[in-house]
Amino acid sequence: MFREKIKVLDCTIRDGGLINDHNFTDHLVREVYRAVSEAGVDYMEIGYKNSRKLFPGGKYGKWKFCEDEDIKRAIDGISSKTKLSVMVDVGRVDINDVKPKKDSPVDMVRVASYVKDIDKAIYLINQFDGKGYETTVNIMAISRALDNEITEAFEQLEKECAAQAIYLVDSFGSLYQESTEFLVKKAKSIIKTKEIGIHTHNNQQLAFGNTIEAIIHGANFVDGTVYGLGRAAGNCPLELLIGFLKNPKYDIRPILDLISKEFIPLREKMEWGYIIPYAITGMLDEHPKAAMELRSGHKKENYREFYEGVKGKGLD
Amino acid sequence: MFREKIKVLDCTIRDGGLINDHNFTDHLVREVYRAVSEAGVDYMEIGYKNSRKLFPGGKYGKWKFCEDEDIKRAIDGISSKTKLSVMVDVGRVDINDVKPKKDSPVDMVRVASYVKDIDKAIYLINQFDGKGYETTVNIMAISRALDNEITEAFEQLEKECAAQAIYLVDSFGSLYQESTEFLVKKAKSIIKTKEIGIHTHNNQQLAFGNTIEAIIHGANFVDGTVYGLGRAAGNCPLELLIGFLKNPKYDIRPILDLISKEFIPLREKMEWGYIIPYAITGMLDEHPKAAMELRSGHKKENYREFYEGVKGKGLD
Repeated sequence: MFREKIKVLDCTIRDGGLINDHNFTDHLVREVYRAVSEAGVDYMEIGYKNSRKLFPGGKYGKWKFCEDEDIKRAIDGISSKTKLSVMVDVGRVDINDVKPKKDSPVDMVRVASYVKDIDKAIYLINQFDGKGYETTVNIMAISRALDNEITEAFEQLEKECAAQAIYLVDSFGSLYQESTEFLVKKAKSIIKTKEIGIHTHNNQQLAFGNTIEAIIHGANFVDGTVYGLGRAAGNCPLELLIGFLKNPKYDIRPILDLISKEFIPLREKMEWGYIIPYAITGMLDEHPKAAMELRSGHKKENYREFYEGVKGKGLD
Repeated sequence: MFREKIKVLDCTIRDGGLINDHNFTDHLVREVYRAVSEAGVDYMEIGYKNSRKLFPGGKYGKWKFCEDEDIKRAIDGISSKTKLSVMVDVGRVDINDVKPKKDSPVDMVRVASYVKDIDKAIYLINQFDGKGYETTVNIMAISRALDNEITEAFEQLEKECAAQAIYLVDSFGSLYQESTEFLVKKAKSIIKTKEIGIHTHNNQQLAFGNTIEAIIHGANFVDGTVYGLGRAAGNCPLELLIGFLKNPKYDIRPILDLISKEFIPLREKMEWGYIIPYAITGMLDEHPKAAMELRSGHKKENYREFYEGVKGKGLD
């Protein structure tokens, strides 16, 4: 697939940070930045820009807050054309923490929002736009939203919001290609002045397939993570995405090196990927948190009991 | 997806046998048979029906030969509606080894063939059909065949062959959804009196996605393996397929139990699944054998060197 407008965003450190409370070492962050830069990846998302007032204490690492000085230190001396992105959640950001773009190493701010919070997301987006940033809205848990709510959100985003792209986020890894096609086509039919993006989760080994599906139907902003690192089942593997895209500006080889040297050892210490309890929450369209709890306990391979518990809960 | 005509074939022991020279224990074969039977799976493929004359010596286990007495012992006492299948390769079977269907526990014979051997496959199919078996032709390495060759093969199969289904086999795990759609539609346009089947490999994490894609476009015979077990990157995970299909005759729970009890421990002893060298051969549309060699050596995580080697070889 070659389409010049397609932009690849690496969110390894940001989505992977949901596994380890954003406690990645500076070394790993630098190596990811170096590799995605050499690979020609368009954006790298380095973490969340949350307010420290809302998350006090020492639990969280620096990539939950993404202070400009920490970012500058991490990327110092690495030659790169890759733009930097941070994510904010509706309700967890203090807009005063964010300097104008001209004073920051950050290029893009992505606002993660549920459909019901879309007005708040639009307010935030327009503030960040006013400060000079590129912006996107990432609509989470879209598999759980009603069609009329999605229609209204798309219409508002088209009319009221400065974002350059609207992402569809399959938070639970529950979408099959037919629904991905339906949602991308619906978004394209309403949102005419912005790009459509796709962010997938790999619970059912469909993260890459659904990303391709979204690209086929016109999505131009696509997220991937190195070796699929990300919460629970993880995300669309960046290496597969780069193998698929034919734009010669992308080079898979630095990503292969990075996986060899950093991610194979990392996988011994952190768990993500195709693991049956995550497949189960995916097929039942549930948040992975019950599966994450199961995996941290001593009954982590009790799949049938877990399946019956999650399925039964759905009948309440 | 609900379509009554869809038939699920489990080929865990057959495709998995390519990793361990068909040396699975009777215990595992029985447990797989018990679980797929309880799960309502339509067929189970237990191995190859190769001629012992062509593979002498003690290297290979019994599931490379699938003698009727071994099969009977493995399934003895297990209540089941699941039909049994064996695979034969063109040139590796002695037709005289195969008793008439009425004297055998086997229900179906599947003939694996490259496009160039399709005449030989048709000859074999018609022999097995004459002995009373259900039959399919599985066209291997279809990603490497030219369109005119595929057209001719499909036309011959439609006119000259007794098989009830023609499978498209993505041997190298290189197909994306667009090509899967193209091939299934092409098959459906020529082959009107038989079903179309799909057998995928998971090199690029697209085995399940491509199986769904084939189903969307009308394939009714679909292969899966428990926990994706199969040569190299493995196959479409049966548990995901059963989670996707809405026919109430299927029950995922026995498969979940089987994975917990047998396949999690098995994965510690045998390697298959998403492993970067297999992803590389998939994206380069190459046989996985070079990657299998790499994985058995001491440089098994040298991905960049491997990538450059395989890619360079393609330029010879």
